[in-house]
Amino acid sequence: MIIHFPIPKIKRRKRKLPLPGAEPGVLIPPTELPKPIVYRIDYNSTRFDSTKLEIDSLTAATFPQPDVITWLDVQGLGDIEFLKRIGDQLELHPLTLEDIVHIHQRPKVEEYDDYLFVVLRAVRLLDENRIDNEQLSFVLKDRILATFQERPGDGFNPVRKRLQDGKSMLRKNSADYLLYALLDATIDNYFPALEAYADTMDLLDERLRENPHPNLSRAVHAMRRELRQFRRAAWPLRDLTGALGRSDFTLVTDQTKLALRDCHDHAVQVADFVESGRERASDLADLYLAMVSEKTNQTMRTLTIIATIFIPLTFLCGLYGMNFDPDASPFNMPELKWKYGYPAFWITMILIFLLMLWFFHRKGWIGNKNKKY
Amino acid sequence: MIIHFPIPKIKRRKRKLPLPGAEPGVLIPPTELPKPIVYRIDYNSTRFDSTKLEIDSLTAATFPQPDVITWLDVQGLGDIEFLKRIGDQLELHPLTLEDIVHIHQRPKVEEYDDYLFVVLRAVRLLDENRIDNEQLSFVLKDRILATFQERPGDGFNPVRKRLQDGKSMLRKNSADYLLYALLDATIDNYFPALEAYADTMDLLDERLRENPHPNLSRAVHAMRRELRQFRRAAWPLRDLTGALGRSDFTLVTDQTKLALRDCHDHAVQVADFVESGRERASDLADLYLAMVSEKTNQTMRTLTIIATIFIPLTFLCGLYGMNFDPDASPFNMPELKWKYGYPAFWITMILIFLLMLWFFHRKGWIGNKNKKY
Amino acid sequence: MIIHFPIPKIKRRKRKLPLPGAEPGVLIPPTELPKPIVYRIDYNSTRFDSTKLEIDSLTAATFPQPDVITWLDVQGLGDIEFLKRIGDQLELHPLTLEDIVHIHQRPKVEEYDDYLFVVLRAVRLLDENRIDNEQLSFVLKDRILATFQERPGDGFNPVRKRLQDGKSMLRKNSADYLLYALLDATIDNYFPALEAYADTMDLLDERLRENPHPNLSRAVHAMRRELRQFRRAAWPLRDLTGALGRSDFTLVTDQTKLALRDCHDHAVQVADFVESGRERASDLADLYLAMVSEKTNQTMRTLTIIATIFIPLTFLCGLYGMNFDPDASPFNMPELKWKYGYPAFWITMILIFLLMLWFFHRKGWIGNKNKKY
Amino acid sequence: MIIHFPIPKIKRRKRKLPLPGAEPGVLIPPTELPKPIVYRIDYNSTRFDSTKLEIDSLTAATFPQPDVITWLDVQGLGDIEFLKRIGDQLELHPLTLEDIVHIHQRPKVEEYDDYLFVVLRAVRLLDENRIDNEQLSFVLKDRILATFQERPGDGFNPVRKRLQDGKSMLRKNSADYLLYALLDATIDNYFPALEAYADTMDLLDERLRENPHPNLSRAVHAMRRELRQFRRAAWPLRDLTGALGRSDFTLVTDQTKLALRDCHDHAVQVADFVESGRERASDLADLYLAMVSEKTNQTMRTLTIIATIFIPLTFLCGLYGMNFDPDASPFNMPELKWKYGYPAFWITMILIFLLMLWFFHRKGWIGNKNKKY
Amino acid sequence: MIIHFPIPKIKRRKRKLPLPGAEPGVLIPPTELPKPIVYRIDYNSTRFDSTKLEIDSLTAATFPQPDVITWLDVQGLGDIEFLKRIGDQLELHPLTLEDIVHIHQRPKVEEYDDYLFVVLRAVRLLDENRIDNEQLSFVLKDRILATFQERPGDGFNPVRKRLQDGKSMLRKNSADYLLYALLDATIDNYFPALEAYADTMDLLDERLRENPHPNLSRAVHAMRRELRQFRRAAWPLRDLTGALGRSDFTLVTDQTKLALRDCHDHAVQVADFVESGRERASDLADLYLAMVSEKTNQTMRTLTIIATIFIPLTFLCGLYGMNFDPDASPFNMPELKWKYGYPAFWITMILIFLLMLWFFHRKGWIGNKNKKY
Repeated sequence: MIIHFPIPKIKRRKRKLPLPGAEPGVLIPPTELPKPIVYRIDYNSTRFDSTKLEIDSLTAATFPQPDVITWLDVQGLGDIEFLKRIGDQLELHPLTLEDIVHIHQRPKVEEYDDYLFVVLRAVRLLDENRIDNEQLSFVLKDRILATFQERPGDGFNPVRKRLQDGKSMLRKNSADYLLYALLDATIDNYFPALEAYADTMDLLDERLRENPHPNLSRAVHAMRRELRQFRRAAWPLRDLTGALGRSDFTLVTDQTKLALRDCHDHAVQVADFVESGRERASDLADLYLAMVSEKTNQTMRTLTIIATIFIPLTFLCGLYGMNFDPDASPFNMPELKWKYGYPAFWITMILIFLLMLWFFHRKGWIGNKNKKY
Repeated sequence: MIIHFPIPKIKRRKRKLPLPGAEPGVLIPPTELPKPIVYRIDYNSTRFDSTKLEIDSLTAATFPQPDVITWLDVQGLGDIEFLKRIGDQLELHPLTLEDIVHIHQRPKVEEYDDYLFVVLRAVRLLDENRIDNEQLSFVLKDRILATFQERPGDGFNPVRKRLQDGKSMLRKNSADYLLYALLDATIDNYFPALEAYADTMDLLDERLRENPHPNLSRAVHAMRRELRQFRRAAWPLRDLTGALGRSDFTLVTDQTKLALRDCHDHAVQVADFVESGRERASDLADLYLAMVSEKTNQTMRTLTIIATIFIPLTFLCGLYGMNFDPDASPFNMPELKWKYGYPAFWITMILIFLLMLWFFHRKGWIGNKNKKY
Repeated sequence: MIIHFPIPKIKRRKRKLPLPGAEPGVLIPPTELPKPIVYRIDYNSTRFDSTKLEIDSLTAATFPQPDVITWLDVQGLGDIEFLKRIGDQLELHPLTLEDIVHIHQRPKVEEYDDYLFVVLRAVRLLDENRIDNEQLSFVLKDRILATFQERPGDGFNPVRKRLQDGKSMLRKNSADYLLYALLDATIDNYFPALEAYADTMDLLDERLRENPHPNLSRAVHAMRRELRQFRRAAWPLRDLTGALGRSDFTLVTDQTKLALRDCHDHAVQVADFVESGRERASDLADLYLAMVSEKTNQTMRTLTIIATIFIPLTFLCGLYGMNFDPDASPFNMPELKWKYGYPAFWITMILIFLLMLWFFHRKGWIGNKNKKY
Repeated sequence: MIIHFPIPKIKRRKRKLPLPGAEPGVLIPPTELPKPIVYRIDYNSTRFDSTKLEIDSLTAATFPQPDVITWLDVQGLGDIEFLKRIGDQLELHPLTLEDIVHIHQRPKVEEYDDYLFVVLRAVRLLDENRIDNEQLSFVLKDRILATFQERPGDGFNPVRKRLQDGKSMLRKNSADYLLYALLDATIDNYFPALEAYADTMDLLDERLRENPHPNLSRAVHAMRRELRQFRRAAWPLRDLTGALGRSDFTLVTDQTKLALRDCHDHAVQVADFVESGRERASDLADLYLAMVSEKTNQTMRTLTIIATIFIPLTFLCGLYGMNFDPDASPFNMPELKWKYGYPAFWITMILIFLLMLWFFHRKGWIGNKNKKY
Repeated sequence: MIIHFPIPKIKRRKRKLPLPGAEPGVLIPPTELPKPIVYRIDYNSTRFDSTKLEIDSLTAATFPQPDVITWLDVQGLGDIEFLKRIGDQLELHPLTLEDIVHIHQRPKVEEYDDYLFVVLRAVRLLDENRIDNEQLSFVLKDRILATFQERPGDGFNPVRKRLQDGKSMLRKNSADYLLYALLDATIDNYFPALEAYADTMDLLDERLRENPHPNLSRAVHAMRRELRQFRRAAWPLRDLTGALGRSDFTLVTDQTKLALRDCHDHAVQVADFVESGRERASDLADLYLAMVSEKTNQTMRTLTIIATIFIPLTFLCGLYGMNFDPDASPFNMPELKWKYGYPAFWITMILIFLLMLWFFHRKGWIGNKNKKY
């Protein structure tokens, strides 16, 4: 039976492949995802309204109100018809809607005529053994930010709280600043997961140095796989945040770009840490091999010492266990009849034994003669 | 006898080398390929005609009809003369025709004066053990798209169906949009093959953790080879789709470029997955080595425990099997005549046995003393 | 018990994570850091005043005096309120202050409207086993340079001494030259730490060649980890100094840029040495594996020689220890009754022994027959 | 004695070093090379003359005839004086002549005032074990192409034949098109050598999976060396052909540039194949190690099974071979006198034997219990 | 005792660290270096004067004479005061002088207002075991070239000879051409050292294939270290010569730039060879591991064969060495009294022996049954 060393595991979901050659914009419902719940938050520096949106109430007239910024927070992607209606209201390109629904997109930022589309992966430590990994899409229009999550439950609550606070900078800025705040929260959520990996590797490291148990090797192998998965989510963030902070997206103000520079720094740090983690996991695999080689060597040594000491002694015993008939000839094992034959035999044996000990001691195989290493 | 672990195998075909120094444009018939069958589809937003083309009917007059887009679908490259006639009708450069016929081209896109030439590899999962790998060439002219496949059987059927559907976007767009749709279908066909690899590696991973059988090592090795082959087909797709979406090819409209951006994302994902797969196969090879090292260590340990316990005991037996004559001298093995000599011998042996057990237990070699690892 | 080989260890501090989604500019006090002590040095070519600043005396009126350059040397980050007041006086952006206080920034240089912000890591050899690793922030304004250290104790004393010396170039130049001098001192402090690593690796190398003790393997592993840590501090210095020396920062004069070119050379050298060190540590790990493999081989050889020599001899002894009854049949071990049976047995044994020695000698396993290698 | 596995070997020639500090343009005669033979081919669309050139007849007046393109085909570099005369006639820079004669140049293309100089390595499969590797230099002037080979024997014969054919495109084009044709022939000659490597690796692969003989390891090692050598010749071809096809060399017409694009594709493919080959050779080395580890494990297992079964049995035999005197005490080995002592002993032994078999069977070490792997 | 395999060793000198924070331009005398000797060569196409310069005679008036080019050849850096005086005469920036004296600079080229500063490492094979490694600085002014070496003894003698020769191109060109000639000589001096490494690796390769002695592993490890050192000197040469040949340094004429292109080719070749060498050393380390693994396997096999053959035989002997009393019971070892018991025993043993031989032969462990490998 194999007992596994506990490793934080990233949630995986079997990719539901669109039929190759399907019409672009044909949406394949990820049926296992929950039905969408939509929260609508309208705010400006003086106002703050949060409502749970009914599906029927979603008409073009209802949003982009003058002087108000609207955050449309869609949680759950399980109802294609509903998402299509939202797409129509927001005037999204069919390919954008396809990217939102098909939850295995590579993180990217795309500019369309009148909106900016950002899709990335939100990786979040749930507890010490589970790491959530969901796709997060942002659509930024003039005074609207729409966010799409796979299901309820996210890392945005601190931002929601800040929004309620009338003195927060969020309230004084445009929708792109809200996008920044949510991106920042998403990226900051990567760190606790990275810390969990680092802690697990610290533990693995310590255990490996003590005893290279094969379960630790399996754990290191699993760790490498998780980090590979993690990297696939984390690396594109660097380019994404870099592009957002640098390029001439008209929807992003200069002040937000300054803030996004900070965001980009964090994304670079995440990528650095992932890479360090990967190198470290690779080192641990090397260490395991080195430790097992040494252990095999020690096992061999134990056997060799025991065998080398006793095999000659056993031979000697065998020698005097032979039945050459002393009566038949005076040459036949006369030592068996000597007076001190047996004591002499013992002395010989003890001498051989001591000689062997001395030999192995000199080779450094036994004894702790304070050898420098 | 070596039984192989089943790995999805990419179809290989021995490269038929053109004679070095041959005239460019000299076509070497890939004789093992079937004779071409040509389907011609003429369509616009209101019309749709599909005919199987007779070779004789192929004259310059017959195609580019006004207001109609023509898809010339050539399946099979086994008739050089016929291909030359098509090349003449389409006014292809001899090097283009050479690239179409010599089926070991590196994927690329080339712009000629009045047409765009795209060549790539279509990799498609046939069944769980076979992956098809054929060269696919596209020639895009003003209102003509010609496609060249090595043989009948492709992943284009969904596109053909969409073409028949009068409401499809394909019918409303120009020939370059059809090129995009076919490219997209081709790239989407890479994913099932990648999934097959991933599944096989999941299985390999699981089996390796249980028991590092040498057949698994051979399978990992074979997997690395397949992935190397796969990468050679998949990597150039990134540059190819990127170039198509970015550059100033006059034959590609802006709308198609937007769609090709999506296509490029998929190509990048394919390349990412291949790279992840390669890293994973490399990790599996490391894991195998680590597991075998540990297994060798355990085998050694078994031997060492048995030998270390029994060798001293056997020595003791040998000792009292000696024939020193007790009658010849009182020093000669008097213990053989002691009353409790034999019981004392047994007690000694049992003590040695227990000592050894205790020693190995303390070393952690035997017993499951709930050791942390 | 595991005794560790002494490796210079880089100081690590557990990252205190800002709550993901927190308002940017919200400062989390690194409480374990000491309260700030602030030294203020005002100087020009003729004047030099150094005062320990009281927290209350810090008002906007007090600094940027005409014709004087002010160095504000803040040592310790343990008082958020105080730092905020300094930030207000210097008119720092909230994100700058956040970067100063959150001591896990990636080294970078950022230009704001009226100041330049540089943050990097000061890595300094304390003694042969400890390497200090603290964050150092610089804010360069027109005639002010503010430096922020995690705690008192730095490598700036030589610069302070040079400042007191009226003839030093520092006194004749603007604040950006002081920035250069401090950067240069910081980067030069990396070298002794690198030398300590190189010395440790020289020792490890020498010891490994003598005897591949598992503690040495653990030490090589630890070394790789330290170097990975070191690299994370050292590599960004290349880009940072390069950017400072090249770009059009209005606050940096041409003369200082020339000097920064020298600084950049040193940063490149640091990065080169770290990379060499990492390659070397990786080589040492390979060497360990090779040495252990060879040692195992030698252990095996010892066992094989002993076993191969004595097993046949012991078999022979066992043979003549059998109790076939010579009296029951003339075929039953008549040799036991031969006159020269025992001497013949010895001669056979000695011949076998010599044959074995010759065999192993020819195989090169024993004897030092001046074999070329 | 070591028997080598046959590997295609690239010809190597000891570099004859120019004396460091020698005057540039001083030519060191590669004396081991044969004396030059010069063929001169004058051709245009209607004319074709081929003559073996006498050294004396080489005067400036003789070539660049009006309306004719001249190919000067120099085979052999063994006569410095002669080469200098050719250099004078062609008005070559001394450094060009030096590059032609010193046959260890890195492939490159260099533009001089009135000519283009291309130097590369011609790698050609001679037979299954030998690969030729000679330096090839091209000097392209207005209506002259001069080629310099180390010795007679090349891969240009197909081009020569095409030149004789009045309908060939070569006859209708300028000298740069001849340069393209020769470059193309040279690069196409790389493929058969690559195929030979691939075939050898297929064989190595197959043999290794059967039996990891150390000769195969040596062969894999030799293969890596050959491929490293091969890469040094092949990689620069990519840049060379790319530069020729892209840059504004006035001597290269647009039509030739289009053709060179094809040439560049082949060079990229050669580089790709070499890289794949190198990865594959590296994989084979890993496979060898894995196979040997497993073989060692199996050897160990055989020994352990035999030893573990017989050591306890031998101990039992030794036990009842002891000479405790049953007459001296009733406790001394009374079982030797029991009626069913010997049968009981046999039963015990058989039980132990079966127990061991069962134990090893359960461990999966013996028996082929259709174990999944 | 460890006997080392002879490897060419690069000279190392302990870096004397400037005190971090020291005033730039403060020179730390490398006291172990000899006092400077200065040779001054004035030349033009008609004149050539070489004088050993007295320290006192060095005044500004003495050099840049009209119409003459001056080469100031400083050999030895052991006198700071003297170097400062030269620096003053040449109007060098303090940082330049610092770079000249602190002999651990990374190779680079720097342009100052009126001079060009080049610093690099001269690596030169002294004899088969020693490679010299000294810093070489060049200062190029309008008609002056000053060179600074660590100590007398260099590779410039051929250039000095050429200078004396009135017909040499050196005499007809400006000072930058002399710089090129010296650079070229320096880079050409790298090749013999590279050849020495290649020869040593050829030898190592051959020996390793015969017998993987641990000293060879140590030698491969040492080789990797030397090559790492070598690379640090060689790689920056590529950029340095490339920059000199490309950039708009006003002091470098077009003709010299053409010649520097050749120099750059050689620097690229040096870098290529170093990289090949490093890959090869890495391959050798892999080969060693593979060979040792195989050797261990063979040792194991020898032991297993011997043990497996004799252990059962010894068991049989032990069996009939037991003392079950045949007189006490008819079941007790009646075979000992059989007439043909002993011959039957021998036949059994011989059969077992042959069976084992056949078994190992079939496994391919013994006998040379012309096995394909």
